[in-house]
Amino acid sequence: MVGGGIGAFIGDVHRMAARLDGKIELVAGAFSSNPKKSKKSGKELGLDPNRVYNNFAEMIEAEKDLPKGERIDFVSIVTPNHVHFEPAKAAIEAGFHVVCDKPVTFNLDEAKQLQKLVKKHKTVFALTHNYTGYPMVKEARAMVAKGDLGNIRRVVVEYPQGWLATRLEESGQKQASWRTDPSKSGKAGCMGDIGTHAENLAEYVTGLKIKRICADLNIFVKGRKLDDDGAVLLEFEKGAKGILFASQIATGEENNIRLRVYGDKGGLDWSQMKPNTLTVRRLNKNIEIKRTGVGKLSKAAQAATRIPAGHPEGFIEAFANIYKNFADTVLAVQRKRQPNAINLDFPTIEDGVRGMQFIDKVVESSESDKKWTKF
Amino acid sequence: MVGGGIGAFIGDVHRMAARLDGKIELVAGAFSSNPKKSKKSGKELGLDPNRVYNNFAEMIEAEKDLPKGERIDFVSIVTPNHVHFEPAKAAIEAGFHVVCDKPVTFNLDEAKQLQKLVKKHKTVFALTHNYTGYPMVKEARAMVAKGDLGNIRRVVVEYPQGWLATRLEESGQKQASWRTDPSKSGKAGCMGDIGTHAENLAEYVTGLKIKRICADLNIFVKGRKLDDDGAVLLEFEKGAKGILFASQIATGEENNIRLRVYGDKGGLDWSQMKPNTLTVRRLNKNIEIKRTGVGKLSKAAQAATRIPAGHPEGFIEAFANIYKNFADTVLAVQRKRQPNAINLDFPTIEDGVRGMQFIDKVVESSESDKKWTKF
Amino acid sequence: MVGGGIGAFIGDVHRMAARLDGKIELVAGAFSSNPKKSKKSGKELGLDPNRVYNNFAEMIEAEKDLPKGERIDFVSIVTPNHVHFEPAKAAIEAGFHVVCDKPVTFNLDEAKQLQKLVKKHKTVFALTHNYTGYPMVKEARAMVAKGDLGNIRRVVVEYPQGWLATRLEESGQKQASWRTDPSKSGKAGCMGDIGTHAENLAEYVTGLKIKRICADLNIFVKGRKLDDDGAVLLEFEKGAKGILFASQIATGEENNIRLRVYGDKGGLDWSQMKPNTLTVRRLNKNIEIKRTGVGKLSKAAQAATRIPAGHPEGFIEAFANIYKNFADTVLAVQRKRQPNAINLDFPTIEDGVRGMQFIDKVVESSESDKKWTKF
Amino acid sequence: MVGGGIGAFIGDVHRMAARLDGKIELVAGAFSSNPKKSKKSGKELGLDPNRVYNNFAEMIEAEKDLPKGERIDFVSIVTPNHVHFEPAKAAIEAGFHVVCDKPVTFNLDEAKQLQKLVKKHKTVFALTHNYTGYPMVKEARAMVAKGDLGNIRRVVVEYPQGWLATRLEESGQKQASWRTDPSKSGKAGCMGDIGTHAENLAEYVTGLKIKRICADLNIFVKGRKLDDDGAVLLEFEKGAKGILFASQIATGEENNIRLRVYGDKGGLDWSQMKPNTLTVRRLNKNIEIKRTGVGKLSKAAQAATRIPAGHPEGFIEAFANIYKNFADTVLAVQRKRQPNAINLDFPTIEDGVRGMQFIDKVVESSESDKKWTKF
Repeated sequence: MVGGGIGAFIGDVHRMAARLDGKIELVAGAFSSNPKKSKKSGKELGLDPNRVYNNFAEMIEAEKDLPKGERIDFVSIVTPNHVHFEPAKAAIEAGFHVVCDKPVTFNLDEAKQLQKLVKKHKTVFALTHNYTGYPMVKEARAMVAKGDLGNIRRVVVEYPQGWLATRLEESGQKQASWRTDPSKSGKAGCMGDIGTHAENLAEYVTGLKIKRICADLNIFVKGRKLDDDGAVLLEFEKGAKGILFASQIATGEENNIRLRVYGDKGGLDWSQMKPNTLTVRRLNKNIEIKRTGVGKLSKAAQAATRIPAGHPEGFIEAFANIYKNFADTVLAVQRKRQPNAINLDFPTIEDGVRGMQFIDKVVESSESDKKWTKF
Repeated sequence: MVGGGIGAFIGDVHRMAARLDGKIELVAGAFSSNPKKSKKSGKELGLDPNRVYNNFAEMIEAEKDLPKGERIDFVSIVTPNHVHFEPAKAAIEAGFHVVCDKPVTFNLDEAKQLQKLVKKHKTVFALTHNYTGYPMVKEARAMVAKGDLGNIRRVVVEYPQGWLATRLEESGQKQASWRTDPSKSGKAGCMGDIGTHAENLAEYVTGLKIKRICADLNIFVKGRKLDDDGAVLLEFEKGAKGILFASQIATGEENNIRLRVYGDKGGLDWSQMKPNTLTVRRLNKNIEIKRTGVGKLSKAAQAATRIPAGHPEGFIEAFANIYKNFADTVLAVQRKRQPNAINLDFPTIEDGVRGMQFIDKVVESSESDKKWTKF
Repeated sequence: MVGGGIGAFIGDVHRMAARLDGKIELVAGAFSSNPKKSKKSGKELGLDPNRVYNNFAEMIEAEKDLPKGERIDFVSIVTPNHVHFEPAKAAIEAGFHVVCDKPVTFNLDEAKQLQKLVKKHKTVFALTHNYTGYPMVKEARAMVAKGDLGNIRRVVVEYPQGWLATRLEESGQKQASWRTDPSKSGKAGCMGDIGTHAENLAEYVTGLKIKRICADLNIFVKGRKLDDDGAVLLEFEKGAKGILFASQIATGEENNIRLRVYGDKGGLDWSQMKPNTLTVRRLNKNIEIKRTGVGKLSKAAQAATRIPAGHPEGFIEAFANIYKNFADTVLAVQRKRQPNAINLDFPTIEDGVRGMQFIDKVVESSESDKKWTKF
Repeated sequence: MVGGGIGAFIGDVHRMAARLDGKIELVAGAFSSNPKKSKKSGKELGLDPNRVYNNFAEMIEAEKDLPKGERIDFVSIVTPNHVHFEPAKAAIEAGFHVVCDKPVTFNLDEAKQLQKLVKKHKTVFALTHNYTGYPMVKEARAMVAKGDLGNIRRVVVEYPQGWLATRLEESGQKQASWRTDPSKSGKAGCMGDIGTHAENLAEYVTGLKIKRICADLNIFVKGRKLDDDGAVLLEFEKGAKGILFASQIATGEENNIRLRVYGDKGGLDWSQMKPNTLTVRRLNKNIEIKRTGVGKLSKAAQAATRIPAGHPEGFIEAFANIYKNFADTVLAVQRKRQPNAINLDFPTIEDGVRGMQFIDKVVESSESDKKWTKF
């Protein structure tokens, strides 16, 4: 693992998600840019001190030289955005597979370089757009894919949070600090951090690519340098239209990503804060509530469910579904088997490149007087 | 009453709303452009046949000549949009007060003419933007007004319906037929019919006027001539930003108008299909659920509530609140008293003009390549 | 109308409910045991002063002597429980039809006397167990009746309120005063006031009669003389079992009557505070949400719905459904026609007698050491 | 681990819960009464084959003889009820700590024997009444403990499931088979399996012990030998009254355990299927929604929360909270430190004995003609 020293929110999430299914063991790490902190974190995590490194370069160098079977199988990169590219590049070039937090890199150019490297080295590369790991998101995708909603017309994806409604970054809160800093976060703030999740979710479920956008990004908190709120009109392939709304100043909101998709035969509604439920509406019919673990769900949804209906599975489980599918794919590749479709169902470097394009384009569109910007 | 023959959805609603509080009695009407139907409707409604007229002109002429105290006090206009202006004009000029369904006229020019007439004749004029009649909408407005949410930053207003997801107008369904016909509905379809409700609700609650918009209107059902869906980016006074989404092709949705407003001190969330609840969120605080009839609510909310908490009041009651306040204002005017602030809390001709401007501007913006259109 | 002076909660509800559909006009009343108050109330309600009476006896006497067509058609009794019997008896004997608030009388004996009188005089008698007026309650009943849930096994009916969590009756609050006074309310408090609603709702929907009960009534507020809370185990016909819970000290609860019924083929769930929704669950199937005005509902549910889906109808509308069906039945009787099944769907004197038996039996059971008391 | 061969629902849950926080490693097991299956399960779990045993006796014998630091620290018992006592006894006597699934034993006598053994051997013993592991359940308990609800008057705890609405046990479904078999499950079915959860949850949150009960147990599915449904009136210490409802034939219900507690100052409402929310109601006040990770929560609730607000934590996380607290207590004991109050917050053998008493008493009460049975 690169980054994720003790106390880092997302590092812990990655570790819990990786552990959950008993397929992955954390054995080495460079947990901080500060070697002392790295050592300390490694100790608290119970690692062999010899495999707690001062930095990612050292780690990759050392692990590469260990005998097969002893060395790490893959690297998880859970650092801030500006420290994604270098460790990913090093890991790929050293022959390791990679899990990387989103957005995949600091800028589009880096993402494209990684894309080439992944292709060249046949790396298994997973990007943790974790919301696609929820069973009912997979069910939604399967419903659209088999035509259950008919032709898609209208997409509404929203992601309100409120935690940056004040200038939290001034208080020394780490998460806020780097996310609002253009030198660490990249050219977008809210849109990079959570707008990309919304974009990814909408494209994943509908199977449609965004073609044109019209963005209006805002900085509401004085002194902040990156957008903390924004709304985007979307045009998808095949004539579907969309709205994407993301905000980190929606005071009092927690982490409320929600997707609605309306086709000519039906509409669906999924909300992350009630993740085990998928609401399906049809013209002049009873509303259907699909529930994790109940009735005939798609294979992808079933495979993403661990326990019986009514036993809520949440964020960590969805995150773990990315890790599980990634691990099974790595295993298949290591054993020279073809990974199956279920295992391959995790976000990849392609999603990462797409996310970076999204960031580029929303910023471009927001600064433009023209209504539409091609994607 | 002009229009609203037996079986017309909105005519019935107006009648039930007018009756509810026992302050208004229906005594005369021209219920249809077809005199036979008008007579029949009048009979079924139990009216004196002498006061069931062949058309609105006849009605106003005849009623005007009745002695004071016997003649009607006001006229309710519940016809399709293209038949609002003429009866309203005639009623105002004859000295009657007016309740008119929304949007106020067929086009902006007519609305402005009415505005002048209302001013000239000191008419009490109510426009049935009925969603502002709900107690918790009034509570929301009062909260914003007294600064409870701080400076408003972000507004999200949405109004999905699904009833026009197919080409219902071809089936002879009356409501669908005129609403999708540019010669009866005006230059907008969905945006005129329900987009104006959303615009009115957002401005009513926030107390902020829309300054610029960026609209994307769509016709999803083939052969239809007017928009059946649209999304609009909004810029309000004082820097607030908004999204307005209205659709009549959101398959399976009923009548789901919802408003969220986020300020720097809190956010509120109201949804018409759960109208007795107002959700208030604050940064790192418990969510507060305000309920009709519970605790300390604003005077306006209290005055709009008839029965104790937990006894749901709905659409008709909210609609009746427009009528009740209108009736009390008419009474005050008749008695040469100053109507009080609570009684004056109903939408007026000014809201009507604003709605017609909104229709003009969303259509203009939707056809423009420029991002922003001034309002 | 007997009782229901201005300001009385339930009097207003009756008046609004009666007015809503334009079938009933209030023309006479004895609104208070205090003649002055009665006169004042009548004036505020805009009645002819000659028909505002000093007491119910005077009213019935006078109205009886008016010519047919001028005199009242029926009497609404909205007084406290101990003043139900006398005016009902007088009205029936004078040939008037009757609407009476629940519970029907002060004690079971009075109820049985009324039952005989109703039979003898062929009175149309409606008891306002208003919760059975909701469309989705009627839908629930229709579903059970046609076997949609299979054999009924388990019933859970609950009615928590919180308004009597403190000794409100000491503050002079009228509603609380008479309801907690054994000389006015009868032998039960909470169980008489709201427990009977729960009992009536359960029997109405399931079509099953309660056969045995095991009751545990409580007085939680010190100094109070009647139960303010209670739980009852129920045994229905055909082996179904039930729980009835009613409380007026469930602090913070508004008016939360809810019914769940589970059969071997499905379960249903209805909650008064979300009245337009009926949830249907089946074994390993998607949950179905039935909504007022959506899809194929029973005739009874459709007839009880006034406006399209998504326009919430509430308490007053449900209450008005009792009045509407009653009025149509009176009309049919007056015109010597057979009332149809839809019109006859309102609670009658039989429900009233049953409610009084319920009160008797829960009190008896609560005082008994035996587990089961026959009903 | 004893029991929990691959495919067993609860075995997997225990393993995921134990893994989640990285404090516990599975190193040995006797996963099935069938040695082959045990071996196979151990292999799939990636264990050292030498530590996959043919039965629990062999496992305890062998592990006991391993050097300190190599041998297991504790035993998890996840077998059906009739195979709890023997392995627990063996483990305790061998000096191992124990996690045991609920109900703790086959009968009360066994439970009492374990209680003595635990005391004698100073065993750390955790019983997986996992619903008390949820953060908002801990918050509820903390609220009651500090008097936030005032004196507790009314408790409503319910646990409807529907999975046994048909005779599933005949299909060979393992979970259903042993749970409905008196020789494996014990003297109660539904009440033992889930009624004990409800009892434990109510006592945990209120801090009040049940003193008297009146039970009505039912067998609704023909041919079944143990109760599949039941309702119980409860009397708690200090005059509080309660209702406990548990059913496995509530068709269509998933796993809907819910607790409501009403005191004279407020009421609370928690539902397992929306576990991150705790609703607090007070007399004539706004409803407060407490949310995991938001605002000032009790230390116990905070310690039981892993990730920020709006990132749903579910069943596995709650289960893991039992394991985490247990593990920290074991660690403290091993290091001769005093475990802190937070770590000690997990169900123990005392809860287990209480649960077995509950089973005894509900069966006794259900068979009795007397209303109340002392607990």
